[in-house]
Amino acid sequence: MIFITRRETFSASHRLYNPQLSEARNLELFDKCANPNGHGHNYVLEVTVAGEPQEETGYVIDMKRLKDIIRRELISKVDHKHLNHDVDFLKDVIPTSENIAKAFWNVLKDKLGDAHLHSIRLQETENNSVEYRG
Amino acid sequence: MIFITRRETFSASHRLYNPQLSEARNLELFDKCANPNGHGHNYVLEVTVAGEPQEETGYVIDMKRLKDIIRRELISKVDHKHLNHDVDFLKDVIPTSENIAKAFWNVLKDKLGDAHLHSIRLQETENNSVEYRG
Amino acid sequence: MIFITRRETFSASHRLYNPQLSEARNLELFDKCANPNGHGHNYVLEVTVAGEPQEETGYVIDMKRLKDIIRRELISKVDHKHLNHDVDFLKDVIPTSENIAKAFWNVLKDKLGDAHLHSIRLQETENNSVEYRG
Amino acid sequence: MIFITRRETFSASHRLYNPQLSEARNLELFDKCANPNGHGHNYVLEVTVAGEPQEETGYVIDMKRLKDIIRRELISKVDHKHLNHDVDFLKDVIPTSENIAKAFWNVLKDKLGDAHLHSIRLQETENNSVEYRG
Amino acid sequence: MIFITRRETFSASHRLYNPQLSEARNLELFDKCANPNGHGHNYVLEVTVAGEPQEETGYVIDMKRLKDIIRRELISKVDHKHLNHDVDFLKDVIPTSENIAKAFWNVLKDKLGDAHLHSIRLQETENNSVEYRG
Amino acid sequence: MIFITRRETFSASHRLYNPQLSEARNLELFDKCANPNGHGHNYVLEVTVAGEPQEETGYVIDMKRLKDIIRRELISKVDHKHLNHDVDFLKDVIPTSENIAKAFWNVLKDKLGDAHLHSIRLQETENNSVEYRG
Repeated sequence: MIFITRRETFSASHRLYNPQLSEARNLELFDKCANPNGHGHNYVLEVTVAGEPQEETGYVIDMKRLKDIIRRELISKVDHKHLNHDVDFLKDVIPTSENIAKAFWNVLKDKLGDAHLHSIRLQETENNSVEYRG
Repeated sequence: MIFITRRETFSASHRLYNPQLSEARNLELFDKCANPNGHGHNYVLEVTVAGEPQEETGYVIDMKRLKDIIRRELISKVDHKHLNHDVDFLKDVIPTSENIAKAFWNVLKDKLGDAHLHSIRLQETENNSVEYRG
Repeated sequence: MIFITRRETFSASHRLYNPQLSEARNLELFDKCANPNGHGHNYVLEVTVAGEPQEETGYVIDMKRLKDIIRRELISKVDHKHLNHDVDFLKDVIPTSENIAKAFWNVLKDKLGDAHLHSIRLQETENNSVEYRG
Repeated sequence: MIFITRRETFSASHRLYNPQLSEARNLELFDKCANPNGHGHNYVLEVTVAGEPQEETGYVIDMKRLKDIIRRELISKVDHKHLNHDVDFLKDVIPTSENIAKAFWNVLKDKLGDAHLHSIRLQETENNSVEYRG
Repeated sequence: MIFITRRETFSASHRLYNPQLSEARNLELFDKCANPNGHGHNYVLEVTVAGEPQEETGYVIDMKRLKDIIRRELISKVDHKHLNHDVDFLKDVIPTSENIAKAFWNVLKDKLGDAHLHSIRLQETENNSVEYRG
Repeated sequence: MIFITRRETFSASHRLYNPQLSEARNLELFDKCANPNGHGHNYVLEVTVAGEPQEETGYVIDMKRLKDIIRRELISKVDHKHLNHDVDFLKDVIPTSENIAKAFWNVLKDKLGDAHLHSIRLQETENNSVEYRG
């Protein structure tokens, strides 16, 4: 079993806010992350797939193909966007890193052909990151 | 002459948009950076001051003091904010990195006591940065 | 299951030395790491906790709370200290990265409420790191 | 169980090419990676071993010893070399990161004494990496 | 005056070899860098231009335009290539970082419109870099 | 004119303390940096030399030679040492980054043959650095 990781980046804004709660409770839960006009990050995304190298190529998956899938299915939808307003597959979730990683998993999991999606790692800042393994 | 650099980070959103121009011209000039809901970055700020080490301390400037000044005057005003809407000293400028760096210079230049402000470097993404030297 | 990682740094000195062994044996085992006056590092600490995102917040654990716990329980005890002399919970161990990581685990494991401590990763230099998973 | 990771780097060139296939098929499979004169990378290698710290030293394995083994068995054979032509243990494989990682595993696995080889991670560029766990 | 820096990467192989000297002298001068089959690097290129922000955009130069120029004029010519054999503008030079940086300068200097080329920085490994300022 | 930069690292401990001042004044000036048992850092040193590439080699200076000089004259004297006690050329200075950089300059400036020492950059932590240009 070999694990292959592709790293991509995107720049987006978001606001942590639960519309079912009061303003006061939102501020208590999310503090400055609840700023009404939002704030943003340079997210670092790492997609890891697992598999065996193919005899013909020595590749588990062609990195260029993996890159193209990630960019088409994820990056083009979230880069230079506001995650609360501009992204279909994030419409009804609070865009924490945890929820974004799970949503990314659901988008990608059937798009990789023979390769097996192993994990989605999302780094929000140089100090904060999450990893989801399905 | 010794140059002292303090690095700080902040997370903010912005939109590149010139209100004196048409939507079409804005889109032509700023492309995806003109997204109406904005987008965001983890900015890396490097403030460099120049001077001679003092006999008593061996410091040009106490880094803790420099850090406190930068955080009080700049970071607390821009971190987790929308640069177009939430920041007094950026109110009438298009928040490109060039303009942010110049605005930061103007805020800081008289706040450093004996130390001499040498440059403001602002990194917007891992690939794009600007430096202003007054 | 989602894994949440918080990164913190601290600067400390240490000396690798086993007081139950001779000077010659210490030098043989630890070489320049046994320098009598010690040496130091900028340690990078990564604490990973595991759990499910909560419905109300989308958080496994509030990163600000995790940061506060790590800083109160660990960083404030080791930052700008000598690990052989100044830290209660490291008193009777040789402060290798392995032993520091285990000691950090023991300090943190009951302080995280519902979240489950998954791993302690400690990077001593850009080339050397350890990870402990309990 | 503690995991110890040593990071080393090497600079090498390679060409992705399967001699049993036509030029056209190679170009289709490997695109610019099949450039006849080759191209190159600064590879980052991370070797992780697992074990329990020893009572006498607090080490799972002496990092200096691990470094010496990696440099003698791997780095000295691949650094400043062409991986298709200059390296005995890569002679009959297509030098993808997947195949290099597996070959490195086979070279190292019996050379570590009591320590247990856990994984070989190989980063080809800042965006592409693989990990092999035997 | 504001300095704008765009960072790009490319992967290439090269051989340090002066064809006017003997094999023995080449080995003496270039040691393992003279390996007949070559070796390679992930080069990091930083192009810095200087100018004043324009009133209409707040840009010294549109980063997307700068990126496109660098990719068209430089990266497409050197990425996944052998610098001694595959690059027209490097044909008659020993491809040291010094000489590559100077050659890059000559290629770019008249392609930037109103913006003024300030420096070419080229990082060959994480420890070795050069900067040329014309 | 081309600028060549070599990066090296070393791990050392130090204490900021002026023996001509009282304990209370030292604590006021240096705060936690005055911890009696000291603390430490992984310092990153960048030495920049300037010159013209030589016709025969395309080098301003052979990086291997520059590396050897830096390691022999500086790194071997400060790595895994206590800067207040173990280093001859730092004996009578408070080992701030400013003072260390100036001392390094004085050690190196006559050891580089034809190459011209341009700057000494010393990074104490990922957020704090100094640069000295003689």
